[in-house]
Amino acid sequence: MSTAKTAETDVFTRRESAARSYCRAFPVVFDTAQGSILTDIDGRDFIDFLSGCSSLNYGHNDPDMKAALIDHISRDGIAHGLDLHTNAKAAFLEAFERHILTPRGMGHKVMMTGPTGTNAVEAAIKLARKVTGRTNVVSFTNGFHGMTLGALALTGNESKRAGAGGVSLGDVTRMPYENALGEDVDTLQMIEMLLTNPSSGVEPPAAFVVELVQGEGGLNAASTDWLQGVARIARENGALLIIDDIQAGIGRSGSFFSFDGMGVEPDMVTLAKSLSGFGLPFACLLIKPAHDIWKPAEHNGTFRGNTHAFVTARVALEKFWADDRLRNEIALKSQVLEERLHRIAERLPGARVKGRGMMRGVDVGSGDLAGRICAKCFDDGLIIETSGAEDEVVKVLAPLTIPMDQFREGLDILESAVESLPPFAFAAE
Amino acid sequence: MSTAKTAETDVFTRRESAARSYCRAFPVVFDTAQGSILTDIDGRDFIDFLSGCSSLNYGHNDPDMKAALIDHISRDGIAHGLDLHTNAKAAFLEAFERHILTPRGMGHKVMMTGPTGTNAVEAAIKLARKVTGRTNVVSFTNGFHGMTLGALALTGNESKRAGAGGVSLGDVTRMPYENALGEDVDTLQMIEMLLTNPSSGVEPPAAFVVELVQGEGGLNAASTDWLQGVARIARENGALLIIDDIQAGIGRSGSFFSFDGMGVEPDMVTLAKSLSGFGLPFACLLIKPAHDIWKPAEHNGTFRGNTHAFVTARVALEKFWADDRLRNEIALKSQVLEERLHRIAERLPGARVKGRGMMRGVDVGSGDLAGRICAKCFDDGLIIETSGAEDEVVKVLAPLTIPMDQFREGLDILESAVESLPPFAFAAE
Amino acid sequence: MSTAKTAETDVFTRRESAARSYCRAFPVVFDTAQGSILTDIDGRDFIDFLSGCSSLNYGHNDPDMKAALIDHISRDGIAHGLDLHTNAKAAFLEAFERHILTPRGMGHKVMMTGPTGTNAVEAAIKLARKVTGRTNVVSFTNGFHGMTLGALALTGNESKRAGAGGVSLGDVTRMPYENALGEDVDTLQMIEMLLTNPSSGVEPPAAFVVELVQGEGGLNAASTDWLQGVARIARENGALLIIDDIQAGIGRSGSFFSFDGMGVEPDMVTLAKSLSGFGLPFACLLIKPAHDIWKPAEHNGTFRGNTHAFVTARVALEKFWADDRLRNEIALKSQVLEERLHRIAERLPGARVKGRGMMRGVDVGSGDLAGRICAKCFDDGLIIETSGAEDEVVKVLAPLTIPMDQFREGLDILESAVESLPPFAFAAE
Amino acid sequence: MSTAKTAETDVFTRRESAARSYCRAFPVVFDTAQGSILTDIDGRDFIDFLSGCSSLNYGHNDPDMKAALIDHISRDGIAHGLDLHTNAKAAFLEAFERHILTPRGMGHKVMMTGPTGTNAVEAAIKLARKVTGRTNVVSFTNGFHGMTLGALALTGNESKRAGAGGVSLGDVTRMPYENALGEDVDTLQMIEMLLTNPSSGVEPPAAFVVELVQGEGGLNAASTDWLQGVARIARENGALLIIDDIQAGIGRSGSFFSFDGMGVEPDMVTLAKSLSGFGLPFACLLIKPAHDIWKPAEHNGTFRGNTHAFVTARVALEKFWADDRLRNEIALKSQVLEERLHRIAERLPGARVKGRGMMRGVDVGSGDLAGRICAKCFDDGLIIETSGAEDEVVKVLAPLTIPMDQFREGLDILESAVESLPPFAFAAE
Repeated sequence: MSTAKTAETDVFTRRESAARSYCRAFPVVFDTAQGSILTDIDGRDFIDFLSGCSSLNYGHNDPDMKAALIDHISRDGIAHGLDLHTNAKAAFLEAFERHILTPRGMGHKVMMTGPTGTNAVEAAIKLARKVTGRTNVVSFTNGFHGMTLGALALTGNESKRAGAGGVSLGDVTRMPYENALGEDVDTLQMIEMLLTNPSSGVEPPAAFVVELVQGEGGLNAASTDWLQGVARIARENGALLIIDDIQAGIGRSGSFFSFDGMGVEPDMVTLAKSLSGFGLPFACLLIKPAHDIWKPAEHNGTFRGNTHAFVTARVALEKFWADDRLRNEIALKSQVLEERLHRIAERLPGARVKGRGMMRGVDVGSGDLAGRICAKCFDDGLIIETSGAEDEVVKVLAPLTIPMDQFREGLDILESAVESLPPFAFAAE
Repeated sequence: MSTAKTAETDVFTRRESAARSYCRAFPVVFDTAQGSILTDIDGRDFIDFLSGCSSLNYGHNDPDMKAALIDHISRDGIAHGLDLHTNAKAAFLEAFERHILTPRGMGHKVMMTGPTGTNAVEAAIKLARKVTGRTNVVSFTNGFHGMTLGALALTGNESKRAGAGGVSLGDVTRMPYENALGEDVDTLQMIEMLLTNPSSGVEPPAAFVVELVQGEGGLNAASTDWLQGVARIARENGALLIIDDIQAGIGRSGSFFSFDGMGVEPDMVTLAKSLSGFGLPFACLLIKPAHDIWKPAEHNGTFRGNTHAFVTARVALEKFWADDRLRNEIALKSQVLEERLHRIAERLPGARVKGRGMMRGVDVGSGDLAGRICAKCFDDGLIIETSGAEDEVVKVLAPLTIPMDQFREGLDILESAVESLPPFAFAAE
Repeated sequence: MSTAKTAETDVFTRRESAARSYCRAFPVVFDTAQGSILTDIDGRDFIDFLSGCSSLNYGHNDPDMKAALIDHISRDGIAHGLDLHTNAKAAFLEAFERHILTPRGMGHKVMMTGPTGTNAVEAAIKLARKVTGRTNVVSFTNGFHGMTLGALALTGNESKRAGAGGVSLGDVTRMPYENALGEDVDTLQMIEMLLTNPSSGVEPPAAFVVELVQGEGGLNAASTDWLQGVARIARENGALLIIDDIQAGIGRSGSFFSFDGMGVEPDMVTLAKSLSGFGLPFACLLIKPAHDIWKPAEHNGTFRGNTHAFVTARVALEKFWADDRLRNEIALKSQVLEERLHRIAERLPGARVKGRGMMRGVDVGSGDLAGRICAKCFDDGLIIETSGAEDEVVKVLAPLTIPMDQFREGLDILESAVESLPPFAFAAE
Repeated sequence: MSTAKTAETDVFTRRESAARSYCRAFPVVFDTAQGSILTDIDGRDFIDFLSGCSSLNYGHNDPDMKAALIDHISRDGIAHGLDLHTNAKAAFLEAFERHILTPRGMGHKVMMTGPTGTNAVEAAIKLARKVTGRTNVVSFTNGFHGMTLGALALTGNESKRAGAGGVSLGDVTRMPYENALGEDVDTLQMIEMLLTNPSSGVEPPAAFVVELVQGEGGLNAASTDWLQGVARIARENGALLIIDDIQAGIGRSGSFFSFDGMGVEPDMVTLAKSLSGFGLPFACLLIKPAHDIWKPAEHNGTFRGNTHAFVTARVALEKFWADDRLRNEIALKSQVLEERLHRIAERLPGARVKGRGMMRGVDVGSGDLAGRICAKCFDDGLIIETSGAEDEVVKVLAPLTIPMDQFREGLDILESAVESLPPFAFAAE
């Protein structure tokens, strides 16, 4: 525990629910943030390799978004507008159309769901069930899709599922992700046999819900072949393909969508986290027009369409996705990241690098070891977290816009932390 | 459809999902808002009797919250902090403790759930199931609790439930709300008999989830006696009492909590909508300490704890709940509202006034009639919506802070709209 | 425990599952049975007021059925024929058509389900769901419909439901039976309001499943008015009416069907228990032809259509239902039974007579007291059991064919047992 | 359609539900049966290679069972005794203990469930859930376990599952049977990885339910290695092993239990079909004593313990399982069967022999072809049916006691039927 325990932390102990979590690993009180740096109330700076779990892909308080948001508030722009038409929403939709959808030939409609990823996922599976008249949904081992009951049924993590308190998390069939059964097992073949055998007992699915890089599940990354296989199997079995791009999207895995250039056309795409660009709550569901059979308000919610987020998201789209600069920057940093992580992994017997783009990490083989590495990093001024079924992956989620020197500095801290481990740390595993 | 259909509206047609709804009834494009007035891009003003469905109880862009938020953003205050400790969160918790919890002797913990009401409800029922080891949850006829699968199972509305696409909305027992079976039927007696008869087939419940004024279900308001009866039955049957105060709370029904002064101690309370004070996405769950058995991150989410909302919520608490001024103002306006609605109801055969505090309306007997009244109001510059199983209640949700002259002006528009109806409008019912 | 514990009982202790139950209340080893008399291996006779829980309405080993069955076996008649055509089945169907269906103008098809009541109930609800495309089924407080998961979900009894081991018993809405909420509450009005209010949260049901006398639930008997009300509500709401006549049918409540003469036409009727006439496993489902949309073998089972039971059931139909003699006999004995039970009830403060026809009992107010009465009867040579949510009803299920002197003798034993109770027995309640 | 359509068949058309099935393939009316021969009302004999789907392993109307049953009935032995102690039940239990359980060192308790296989399966999974406090149950592709909702959820067959009418068949995880994903995929490895990965999303199971030869699913036979692997995985994951021996047990696959000699100790075993020996409805569940935690009557039913079946089952045990004669006879006939089926399979391109013991068949590659073979057999005096997800396996289920000459005669008819097929029959596949 840090010595920063002040009057402010007391109120957390007194009044905040035991469900709080990140604050336990990083026990200081934060005050401000700019770019890739978080600063606590004692003025100590931390390099941020967590980025709000990929909600701050453009860093903290981007000056252009900040200026636009202050301007919007200053002129009494709508803050809360239900799903009324606002010029802020129109501007967001137009930017999203111009910079994202049209260049990709995507005719998708944009559904403003409640401003959380789990809500977008819930909307997606509800709609897939309506469209197909089927109830079963396929999700994958190590998938993470949210905490509300419908999304939680799709989520694989045992400790999260325990939160349901014994309610059956039904109407979902779990299939093995690529390589989940070992690199020699073709999971597509298995999925296909289960769906085509009429006595398999697997109900014809309404949809497949898949992440292309499993952000919480250990940074497993699907190959283009595997994704195309899933898309083909879905199509041939009358099921929709839903790509959950909440963590891997918005540039994190290399391009705006994680599936860019992979030759698939998802029926639906969920977006949240970095969608607002500024870390504001915002989520949406992209829907192929033929599937957009919602009746008005059939899935509604008070905060669907966060107007402040429309403002910052528009700026983000115009600033970062009107040309290839960010994509090129990500490519460059991804290469740096990959090389450094391989070097780090070499120091750890059995460790291996996982992930894609700026969403990579090192599987160090045990959650205990990964936790100790992250704790050492924090002591040294770096905020970094773990991922995976056993929290065994040290995961780097730096802002995509992080200056190269800060990026290297953060990686140096990580490497030092690994180096500093006593030899028995590995033996203990 | 308004003639305001401009370039901006086109993008909605092209790109926004068919799930959008309010914008269909109010087909203009809004630009700014201040206090009780919404202004569209053509400069036309509308009095707001919708208040973001009770998310804007203090009106739009309150100047003190606005200043504090701009200041926070300007100085690079944290925008997104996961559930890390921040001084903004501490200040909110302290204000909430000082102005709300401590004066009521409430020891409750505050859980920052995902920033939507439905997420707070999901967290509540998950926790109640964990605490009790039971899966069944009692909810009430005409209750509305959200759109994600767990909350949707609690929601009574048929068209919302249809959105689930045929999935079984299980583990919920529906009980009749006060007067739901007619004023002569004691629904408490019925509930109690069903729970105490061991062959009733009703599983012992983990919790009762109840709204004290059913905001979407037609402004049915529970009496103190009935609520105390529900609390007693819950307690005697080992079930928790969860009050969903998302729409009726934060002053809307007369005091901060809808249950203030009714002599019950809910085990959990859900808050959202006006909690941020500014219309920003924010929700929390209040939990009696003994029930706060969450493991860290057992219910998590990227946007739990919206830092901008902490800032505005703190200002709202300090400005409006440090003394009795707002409560007295609400009492006064509630009386005005009640009198005016009675006068209006007298013009409509069979109509009756429903609700409590600043959450009242007129049941005009049919959704078609109510819809025509609201449409006429919109033409005359007033935004007002319906509620109820058949949308048969014209519902007034004016800002609690609305200046009296604007309040009367809005009520005048409503009364004129009713007066303007041709006589056959009633005959048609 | 009886002193009859012999070598034979040892094997029960050693090898029979703890699920066994009746043998605990009647701890002797039975050998033979004829008419209304059971005889144990020590030659002791017992009058049978249990009748295999209404499976032996014609008494034990009826001589005509016995002769026919021995003849069938002797000539190598089919014993097991799956659902192949056999002349034994044809003869049964013809007798059932001639004596039961045609006189009542019932066009129903006969489905040979697995030979247990629970299987007939499962078939009924599966078919109702297929026919209507709805999943919800309405069942009633204190209803008992079987132990397999689908039927168990309809069953109200808490201890039976506990056997499911925590699985959600879903897709059922529980409604209060007539008088379940007190004699002053019109449960039909409540049911109707819940089904017609679109925000009640009660899904439109596929079917209502109802017993006209609740055999296990405490001998609650529905009135003609109430049944007609249920039938009307079902019809108006697009739901099927399924009468579970497993315990109350085959003469038990006065006529062949419990609903005879009540002016309703059930869409389906379940029969089992006394259907074979001889106590052999046999069940069927009667289905209005329009609903008989099963595909071949869509609900199948190895023992559907027990050929031995076809033989005895045919004899039973021809012997007892070709004319009015049995019905008149039941009417006469019912009157005797009612009078005697009223006399008995008068001896017990607060006791009341329940039931209909030859399916009546005395609610003595506590399961403990009822159990002591039954135990005393057993000591005195009468086998009789309890019913009800708390086992608080002493239930008389004598064979319909019991000779009047044995019937009176049994009732005398019961009356003596009540008389013999020490005064504190009642005070203790 | 046979010319045997007489008055008797008319009543089937008029009055029997469309769910009937076998009678459609064998459209005659049967009258008597003895040993391996069924005789129709016109006196035509058929060799029975169906054996009541393995319910008549000792043939029809075995003379010793027949004599004992007639004797029992003649002396007014109990026909229906609920679960009271009877000497008939004691004699059965003692014989079962002496000839089956004790020689195998099995301490199992015997639970008399309702007299259908599906009821025994329902009891098994209810108990496994109670014992473990878990709800998930693992069943396998192509498994068949019954038609009531709990058992149907375990059953893989799509058309059977459709009978549920859209109800979710939940709380079951489907795993691939041995070789279900091709002979090169180790399904055990997959099962183990899914159960040991805490983020797989597969809930820890209460039990594995497995058939060692899948009687309805296409005669897939598990190897000893695979079964031991399943047993080990179950044990290591805290799950019970339930062997469903309803079709493969009672000698059908070579020994009394299908798992004899395979080195596993199932926690529970379901038995039905040939358990009575005479084709009478009878089922039971064998339970390891430590798991027999039922409360009295917690799973009950009117016909649990069919007394007539106790009588015949006892004779069957004493006659056939007191020594090794039947087992040796089965071994000999199994060899004959295997050789003949291989010869037959050689005539069909791509055909292969499947199954074990006297439970074998030929996978001819299409249900259409298999159906034509069976139809030709019927014309030639042999009753034989298909199995498999596509009904693509011609399945031989001759009585175990069939005289060798009749056995060969039946196999000759089968071989001729295959020979008689025009060459294009195969090409058409």
